[in-house]
Amino acid sequence: MKNRRFILKTHATGLPGPEHFVLVEDEAPEPGPDQVLVRNHFVTIDPAMKGWISEAKNYASVETGATMRAFGVGEVVSSRHTDISPGDFVCGMTGWQDYGIADATQPFFRKVDPDHGPISTALGIYGISGLTAYFGLIDIGQPEAGETVVVSTAAGAVGSAVGQIAGICGCRTVGITGGPAKAALCTDIFGYDAAIDYKTESDLAGTLKSACPDGIDVYYDNVGGATLDIVMTMLNVGARIVICGTAATASWSPPPQGPRLERAILVARAKVQGLIIFDYAERFPDGLEALHNWAAAGQIVWREEIIDGLANAPKALASLYQGDNMGRLLLGLIIECNIQFIEIKQ
Amino acid sequence: MKNRRFILKTHATGLPGPEHFVLVEDEAPEPGPDQVLVRNHFVTIDPAMKGWISEAKNYASVETGATMRAFGVGEVVSSRHTDISPGDFVCGMTGWQDYGIADATQPFFRKVDPDHGPISTALGIYGISGLTAYFGLIDIGQPEAGETVVVSTAAGAVGSAVGQIAGICGCRTVGITGGPAKAALCTDIFGYDAAIDYKTESDLAGTLKSACPDGIDVYYDNVGGATLDIVMTMLNVGARIVICGTAATASWSPPPQGPRLERAILVARAKVQGLIIFDYAERFPDGLEALHNWAAAGQIVWREEIIDGLANAPKALASLYQGDNMGRLLLGLIIECNIQFIEIKQ
Repeated sequence: MKNRRFILKTHATGLPGPEHFVLVEDEAPEPGPDQVLVRNHFVTIDPAMKGWISEAKNYASVETGATMRAFGVGEVVSSRHTDISPGDFVCGMTGWQDYGIADATQPFFRKVDPDHGPISTALGIYGISGLTAYFGLIDIGQPEAGETVVVSTAAGAVGSAVGQIAGICGCRTVGITGGPAKAALCTDIFGYDAAIDYKTESDLAGTLKSACPDGIDVYYDNVGGATLDIVMTMLNVGARIVICGTAATASWSPPPQGPRLERAILVARAKVQGLIIFDYAERFPDGLEALHNWAAAGQIVWREEIIDGLANAPKALASLYQGDNMGRLLLGLIIECNIQFIEIKQ
Repeated sequence: MKNRRFILKTHATGLPGPEHFVLVEDEAPEPGPDQVLVRNHFVTIDPAMKGWISEAKNYASVETGATMRAFGVGEVVSSRHTDISPGDFVCGMTGWQDYGIADATQPFFRKVDPDHGPISTALGIYGISGLTAYFGLIDIGQPEAGETVVVSTAAGAVGSAVGQIAGICGCRTVGITGGPAKAALCTDIFGYDAAIDYKTESDLAGTLKSACPDGIDVYYDNVGGATLDIVMTMLNVGARIVICGTAATASWSPPPQGPRLERAILVARAKVQGLIIFDYAERFPDGLEALHNWAAAGQIVWREEIIDGLANAPKALASLYQGDNMGRLLLGLIIECNIQFIEIKQ
């Protein structure tokens, strides 16, 4: 069976683009013990991919010549796993390719129940995005009712879930996002109490301060950089900062400079903690249950943006860092569509 | 009753010195309800004083014209507290003065039992230094046997206690300190597995890496700055960094620049948390009990350096930032001595 797949041509020192990948065609792989072969219906286009393909130390580096790492969901073609049969839907680390191996020992491997919604949700609100939001906010952020929670990339797949979960926890929620359309999404769809468009904002510090009259208790950070520096000047005592992504910094070699932060951390007795969602793999069922329940109660909505065709993967990844997409960015390999927007409310 | 006291003349923008204080003489204050008047035997010369008298936001700012804030221990002269009588020894926030008010509502107020050692220990190993070491390391650092703990200002009052407690916890301990005499103290007296003299070290990063062959799990940081930046490149997954002081940075206005740290925090899923010991006031008795027990078992030793005479307080404070002292720096107001070194092993 023929299989098209993207392999990593060269490591990136800055933003990823089509020049880092090459599409090859060969035979689809054979599943080993406890593995299944999946026809990918959707694969992910993730902000974290910049780190995965960079030369710098990363928790999930991709080697040159290897198939590009990606989450995928699709239909099982053949199975060597006792609980999975052909025709089942599963998600796992299936990569940027038509047919990928999903391994039951992978942290994101699971059987997907279409009754919970379109199977694409297994890569978004019921997958890495929703779980990252859930464990980062609940475990590290530890929001309490009445506190102020600030979220960067607030309209994104992770950020929009963070904002809504913080709202469910009884917090005041302030979203920072790029562009008026996303700011409107934040307040109109995702229920933020306030949204700030950092792209048109001439005084981000002043506007953020006004939006957080009681200071900042939790900052769920997907960008780092200058926005993080501003937030660090407004922390309440005991503040928690979730470091989930560093999208504002294009390259880490050489390390970019910024104002030193240890004094602000000390004075506020703040906790700044990094999050990689794989570390929570054993608790994913708890997170999924909470997300399913909130969605069923109408307390959480989400948004997906699907780009058609495997060949568009590198281009789609490059576009991600332009900040143009709104919602969970996925690549559709089966359905016929041209840039489809799906907004889902239960 | 005449009382000499130092008041803050001007806020400091950099390192504190004699120019920031003025000695005045007036009448000793009268204790209010639940207060006692204390004849200070010892008062503290603290690294944190730089922050207390700076113009920048601080958890314990001193206003100009006010008596300089300091911890003190001494004999009660008069009491309006039901459990305290004249002749008792107490410690509290009595200030740079001959006679100070100790208030039972202050977090550091307690009756001092001379059976546990010289009363000066209430300002050191059995006071702010020992408790800061204990709660910072145990609560935030959470050291586990076999892990590697790095400590800056490793021979200081806090650092030396951190190193010894980490050793008691079964960790490999690496101390960073300034000068060969302090490095010798670290290994010979305080039991560090390795000590690094950053002042003579031409390759701090390389030497630290060699001293930590299994990476760094806990960094108890009293300095921040370039040393922190180096440590951040050597973190193990799940590392904990205790931000206890920022002595390496002379001035925070304007904020100094350094390499951005959020990427290292993310990749290592590190926790970087600030510590102000006052937040642990309710649990001080637990910390003191642990410290008393370790000292009684001969597992902890400490070192005090006492400078004679109230008038020397500002000069002593300035000398602290030169890094010349070895051990807990106190001012002796009663005893007659010229720069006395006291090293205590139980």
